[in-house]
Amino acid sequence: MRIDIITVLPEMLEGFVNESILARAQKKGLAEIHLHNLRDYTNDKWRRVDDYPYGGFAGMVMQCEPIDRAISALKAERDYDEVIYTSPDGERFDQHVANELSMKGNIIILCGHYKGIDQRVRDNLITREISIGDYVLTGGELAAAVMADAIVRIVPGVIGDEQSALSDCFQDDMLSAPIYTRPADYKGWKVPEVLLSGHEAKIKAWEMEQAMERTRRLRPDLLKD
Amino acid sequence: MRIDIITVLPEMLEGFVNESILARAQKKGLAEIHLHNLRDYTNDKWRRVDDYPYGGFAGMVMQCEPIDRAISALKAERDYDEVIYTSPDGERFDQHVANELSMKGNIIILCGHYKGIDQRVRDNLITREISIGDYVLTGGELAAAVMADAIVRIVPGVIGDEQSALSDCFQDDMLSAPIYTRPADYKGWKVPEVLLSGHEAKIKAWEMEQAMERTRRLRPDLLKD
Repeated sequence: MRIDIITVLPEMLEGFVNESILARAQKKGLAEIHLHNLRDYTNDKWRRVDDYPYGGFAGMVMQCEPIDRAISALKAERDYDEVIYTSPDGERFDQHVANELSMKGNIIILCGHYKGIDQRVRDNLITREISIGDYVLTGGELAAAVMADAIVRIVPGVIGDEQSALSDCFQDDMLSAPIYTRPADYKGWKVPEVLLSGHEAKIKAWEMEQAMERTRRLRPDLLKD
Repeated sequence: MRIDIITVLPEMLEGFVNESILARAQKKGLAEIHLHNLRDYTNDKWRRVDDYPYGGFAGMVMQCEPIDRAISALKAERDYDEVIYTSPDGERFDQHVANELSMKGNIIILCGHYKGIDQRVRDNLITREISIGDYVLTGGELAAAVMADAIVRIVPGVIGDEQSALSDCFQDDMLSAPIYTRPADYKGWKVPEVLLSGHEAKIKAWEMEQAMERTRRLRPDLLKD
């Protein structure tokens, strides 16, 4: 799959694209991530992409034209399944949305900045608005990074250990059981006996029980559906 | 305020710390962000910080010792208000949690990786587990970055335009009204007449009405409390 990220701060995302699971996925030829600087698409001699909002409100707003030109340039090269805008008032991103998006071919993610983007872009160019949570970030860059990571890591073949991904939190709407590694006793903090028993059936039962208990205690809402 | 981030992938976060609002906050002397490589705290000659889980489960688990040593080294230097672990089964991060954490002095954020961290670290060293959303990421680095961004941007003085931050989404449990900037007509896409009227009271009323309509339509849950 291919993800094109349009941003005013590509430098902020470069380390992430080159040092994370995205780097591994790209090396394996399983994903392509491209960063595009929105300022390359403005005609303004100062490379400005924002202006004051109508109505005298506070903050700056990203203008239609550079965004329209950036998206049009990408669309002229290939078809896109989704043009996503990262916005706190969008559809909530969760593991189901990640699974769904991981099966797409090409997607564009537009990172908002400042006070946001001109509403006309949202009305006319964006196919889907997605929020990673109920909090405000300085820009959409981290939201784009979060989505790209969650999506790309479940593309088949990207992480070596498929079994590990399948047993992740949320894949079956349950939290995971606690996990432990060596040493069995660290400063008097001990690993539960059952995990040292070698008794496979008992261990499986313990894991299920722990996952269920934890989900019931911390996230009863997950069990309701 | 000061945020110490413990990670196995500091390179992934460097661009973010140096190019974002965090850079600006640090320049202004309003926040300090420090990245610590967990591998600097292992005695293992291969700098390994993970091992196989007890019980024969899939994936790798981050060990107690390097984490204990990293946290202890930081605590020996200063007091910390919170030692946070980024985990999908933690308390949900939202604007209220961001506001609260922005008033703390020093916090540590431990980034989980691989299948997670040894449960004994969670039981004994972590004061708070926080999740940025119901999705699985390759590691806690992006979650730490998201939290740091949301927290630091609301530290007074960090963003120039306080009024802009106060009118952000969620600050009053409402979504924001649509925003527009020049030109008033872009390819036939028009800005609502009222915003061009210069009539302040009408504009304010329109904004409130739009914010309410949008919240009711997209996020009725926010209005319930």
